[in-house]
Amino acid sequence: MKVGRVIGNVVSTINHEFFDGERLLLCKLLDRGEDTSAYLICTDRVGAGADEMVLILDEGNSARQIYGISTGPIRSVVVGIVDAVDEV
Amino acid sequence: MKVGRVIGNVVSTINHEFFDGERLLLCKLLDRGEDTSAYLICTDRVGAGADEMVLILDEGNSARQIYGISTGPIRSVVVGIVDAVDEV
Amino acid sequence: MKVGRVIGNVVSTINHEFFDGERLLLCKLLDRGEDTSAYLICTDRVGAGADEMVLILDEGNSARQIYGISTGPIRSVVVGIVDAVDEV
Amino acid sequence: MKVGRVIGNVVSTINHEFFDGERLLLCKLLDRGEDTSAYLICTDRVGAGADEMVLILDEGNSARQIYGISTGPIRSVVVGIVDAVDEV
Amino acid sequence: MKVGRVIGNVVSTINHEFFDGERLLLCKLLDRGEDTSAYLICTDRVGAGADEMVLILDEGNSARQIYGISTGPIRSVVVGIVDAVDEV
Repeated sequence: MKVGRVIGNVVSTINHEFFDGERLLLCKLLDRGEDTSAYLICTDRVGAGADEMVLILDEGNSARQIYGISTGPIRSVVVGIVDAVDEV
Repeated sequence: MKVGRVIGNVVSTINHEFFDGERLLLCKLLDRGEDTSAYLICTDRVGAGADEMVLILDEGNSARQIYGISTGPIRSVVVGIVDAVDEV
Repeated sequence: MKVGRVIGNVVSTINHEFFDGERLLLCKLLDRGEDTSAYLICTDRVGAGADEMVLILDEGNSARQIYGISTGPIRSVVVGIVDAVDEV
Repeated sequence: MKVGRVIGNVVSTINHEFFDGERLLLCKLLDRGEDTSAYLICTDRVGAGADEMVLILDEGNSARQIYGISTGPIRSVVVGIVDAVDEV
Repeated sequence: MKVGRVIGNVVSTINHEFFDGERLLLCKLLDRGEDTSAYLICTDRVGAGADEMVLILDEGNSARQIYGISTGPIRSVVVGIVDAVDEV
């Protein structure tokens, strides 16, 4: 999993029932709290808001299991809001 | 998923029935509207035109589900035209 | 597999029973003992502590087999403590 | 998929029947006709020759379907000769 | 597949029967004979020795088929010794 930050929404029509009503979050990937140059477009399971730090799962089979479905065209999903990153 | 921009077509004969009649789009990946150095060759489900900003799904199982098939040699597919990217 | 170093914990609630009671380790990936700019958030099968060098398996199906489950939303898991890296 | 250029052959014995008689092509990945620093070792389905521009499919399940097999230790395969890349 | 060079061994106990008796090779990935900054920890099917140039298969399903098993927590495996790389 990766830690990201929600920096926007992507507005696009996808012609597959899975995406009906799904928001598409534009998430910048972070490295120790700092933005990197990488990003992912994710669906959202936790109601993440603008600028929130989130946990992103980026594997198709895992993403489908988060949704409790065995098929579905999905790979990247926001699975948690990050409350804290405690470095040691 | 990733956001890309259609910058061309690739003309190539692939000896597998899946590709009969399929266009192969050359898509530059974008980061906040700017070209990156990465690209993908994608099939097209939405009739994307030159220079359009598109949403790309890059996972084999997901791509096959977009086509409604259980097998097929496909991984990267344009699944939507991006109408807007609203940054926060 | 990759070699990493545990540099922290991520505190986040994930709404899926798999993660109940699982720690999420923030692991920096290493190259010959030196930190790289890449990291992974991993679950932990070995009780790895702060600053320990660990072996990370980063594939969904493999990760699920380490847990002895056939389904589960997991991809990156710490599978071993690295006792030594013997270069030749 | 990716566009590459055949820059050589790799000579290696692999102890698995799938590779009996298979050539292993060393393919440089290209970005708009220019070499990048990335490469892949691919099997060949199209009889690609030295210096030819080729289309590379880099996913295990897709690669196996190109061969019409359900199992087989293969991930990267040259699936087409690129006749032209028409940029827009 | 990738070409790598064996630069060491990783000593680590992994609590899964698959790894009983398996060596873990530290392999630097090469680009035209030169070391890159990337590496992989691989299991070994060919008895590769120190400093040998090897062929690495890096996909879970393929790796399992090289071992002739349908399950097993494995992704990166050394499948051949590279006898020669003939560039054109």
